[in-house]
Amino acid sequence: MTSPILTLTTDFGLSDHFVGVMKGVILGICPRSLVVDISHNVTPFEVTEAAFLLAQSYSYFPKKTVHVAVVDPGVGTARRPILVEAAGQYFIGPDNGVFSLVCGREKHRVREITAVKYFRQHVSQTFHGRDIFAPVAAHLANGISAAAMGRRIDNYLRSNFDKPERTGRRVWTGLVLKIDRFGNLTTNFQPAELPDLLTHRFEMQVGIQRLHRLASIYAEGTPGEPFLILGSSGYFEVALNQGSAARTLGVGAGAPLELTVY
Amino acid sequence: MTSPILTLTTDFGLSDHFVGVMKGVILGICPRSLVVDISHNVTPFEVTEAAFLLAQSYSYFPKKTVHVAVVDPGVGTARRPILVEAAGQYFIGPDNGVFSLVCGREKHRVREITAVKYFRQHVSQTFHGRDIFAPVAAHLANGISAAAMGRRIDNYLRSNFDKPERTGRRVWTGLVLKIDRFGNLTTNFQPAELPDLLTHRFEMQVGIQRLHRLASIYAEGTPGEPFLILGSSGYFEVALNQGSAARTLGVGAGAPLELTVY
Amino acid sequence: MTSPILTLTTDFGLSDHFVGVMKGVILGICPRSLVVDISHNVTPFEVTEAAFLLAQSYSYFPKKTVHVAVVDPGVGTARRPILVEAAGQYFIGPDNGVFSLVCGREKHRVREITAVKYFRQHVSQTFHGRDIFAPVAAHLANGISAAAMGRRIDNYLRSNFDKPERTGRRVWTGLVLKIDRFGNLTTNFQPAELPDLLTHRFEMQVGIQRLHRLASIYAEGTPGEPFLILGSSGYFEVALNQGSAARTLGVGAGAPLELTVY
Repeated sequence: MTSPILTLTTDFGLSDHFVGVMKGVILGICPRSLVVDISHNVTPFEVTEAAFLLAQSYSYFPKKTVHVAVVDPGVGTARRPILVEAAGQYFIGPDNGVFSLVCGREKHRVREITAVKYFRQHVSQTFHGRDIFAPVAAHLANGISAAAMGRRIDNYLRSNFDKPERTGRRVWTGLVLKIDRFGNLTTNFQPAELPDLLTHRFEMQVGIQRLHRLASIYAEGTPGEPFLILGSSGYFEVALNQGSAARTLGVGAGAPLELTVY
Repeated sequence: MTSPILTLTTDFGLSDHFVGVMKGVILGICPRSLVVDISHNVTPFEVTEAAFLLAQSYSYFPKKTVHVAVVDPGVGTARRPILVEAAGQYFIGPDNGVFSLVCGREKHRVREITAVKYFRQHVSQTFHGRDIFAPVAAHLANGISAAAMGRRIDNYLRSNFDKPERTGRRVWTGLVLKIDRFGNLTTNFQPAELPDLLTHRFEMQVGIQRLHRLASIYAEGTPGEPFLILGSSGYFEVALNQGSAARTLGVGAGAPLELTVY
Repeated sequence: MTSPILTLTTDFGLSDHFVGVMKGVILGICPRSLVVDISHNVTPFEVTEAAFLLAQSYSYFPKKTVHVAVVDPGVGTARRPILVEAAGQYFIGPDNGVFSLVCGREKHRVREITAVKYFRQHVSQTFHGRDIFAPVAAHLANGISAAAMGRRIDNYLRSNFDKPERTGRRVWTGLVLKIDRFGNLTTNFQPAELPDLLTHRFEMQVGIQRLHRLASIYAEGTPGEPFLILGSSGYFEVALNQGSAARTLGVGAGAPLELTVY
């Protein structure tokens, strides 16, 4: 019998006890489970970044994996805990748009989690990761059904930040979804929506600089000159050969991008 | 048969091989075990911070969990390795006060670890985490009894940093136990000792600023104005709505606090 | 039946989804496996540092452990994926010298990994960790033989950065392999090659400073004065009692060292 798999995506960082405590709660309820960290270094309160990380990860995990996301600026307010069923997997977290990208790609069902008997006995105002999300996830991993966690809802929060907007005949406006460790900027441009990019000349404005080059491997770029590349994420990235595009261009997550295709 | 659970709390950081090596040693001795990281980012040599993290974590883990703490400025000196039995769990580390908070809350027995046959064959002067604490923990997880590790002792080191001191009829002096990732200051004030705080006016001096407000959720505070809140840790925290109280107030772990209740 | 053990050493950092995705791929293929992180904070593109971390770790893991190293500045170029069999364990990664230290210490066999049927179906240009190294490692953990992964080769890349060079009758020139979290400098000097160091006077030049003292425990040094100590790694380290030698001396990984023994 194989171990149930759970993943965690939070903005808790790795210096506090929060992540360890969630794992203790999970193992107390489902001792056979394997818990995999996606990231705990999400920029505090940045729901978009957590949504992106999850969307990049879930399809590489086996069916029935339970993904828990706790980036939750509204903890303690009226926002609801939700459970999303999509792609044969489960997604548990606050109803704040963190599963928008998954829901944009997959058929899905959303439930409001109301079955307090699967919560910890005392639910704090400040740590729903420990008191609601971890125990509900562990009970799901133990085989309790999704339906037992609460009723289906339709009015959950959806955000639409993964597609650039067409703002002219040949012009699209997008944004930077994430800066990676190497300083590459993951944009929200994807080839399916921009087939022209691969065959036409283009200009992408990032900060005060303009890029015109599309490379096929990172090692290909001229040192010091940022270029566009199709990243392993499926999105175009702005990169720099062995350097940080983010630092060179002086932009961060959320920065606007303008693409013109000729 | 469920997997034995071990946890690790160290100041080794995550850039070196030290943590991986301890896990290799553990899995070599107890291949069925699950190792959970509490934190490896304890401020170097800060025994108090490690004590706090452990005290916040252990009660969420199942019985028989083996907690290993390696924040050990005295490694290689005469300080002893100890094993604490408390709350149905085990705690292994140096005798430097790192288990003081656990011992302050739970009935406990302390043993000096002297059973060298459970150590690695060669014990270095510099890495007892690998050579003593990890193998002893793994043998305990394998079912070797605590008593087999050494004799009970009474003269282990206790520290008393989790309670503020009463310094006037209405005045208490405490300290900051820990700064969390969001810049919240965890104080050593707890509601059980200060029931008045919830119903009376108060003033808390932190650095050069004075706070007068107690909030019930993080989202409640006025942006820019620090406030007191009862954290999920059970201690009062000094927090700032969507900002860093530590940076705004310019204080760090160990900073003094003065509370006056009117 | 015990769980197969895999380790990961990368320069991916812990803020992105890359590590989580590799674990998802591994667990999808070998659901019984335990994955241990050595480090994901290798300085980007620093093959030497990854080689050092692996060399410090592998001997503490059980036989048949599969070590995966992904520090891979040449991803997408013609560099080959390789599999090294050494010390009863497996090492998987790019052919860029990352296993040089292991190969310098152990009898070994090297294979070029060519069995595309064990790769993910679509291999990207940018993320061989996910598409080649993780799945091949998981299949090995599942019991597929090393021979099934590809033919033996002899022309793999070897580097020789773990030994100082003798540059005078009493003079050796070495380098800093790694800065640890405490700011200690791990050098490439080992006692076996320098028995004199333990009994003679010496001078080591590091940056603009000269050291003359060998300590046996970290707590022994005078605060503020850097000294030499035999680290748990088996290499001599330049350390400072409760302080950062790297910051005090102003040097980083790769910095040259000159040792004169009198």
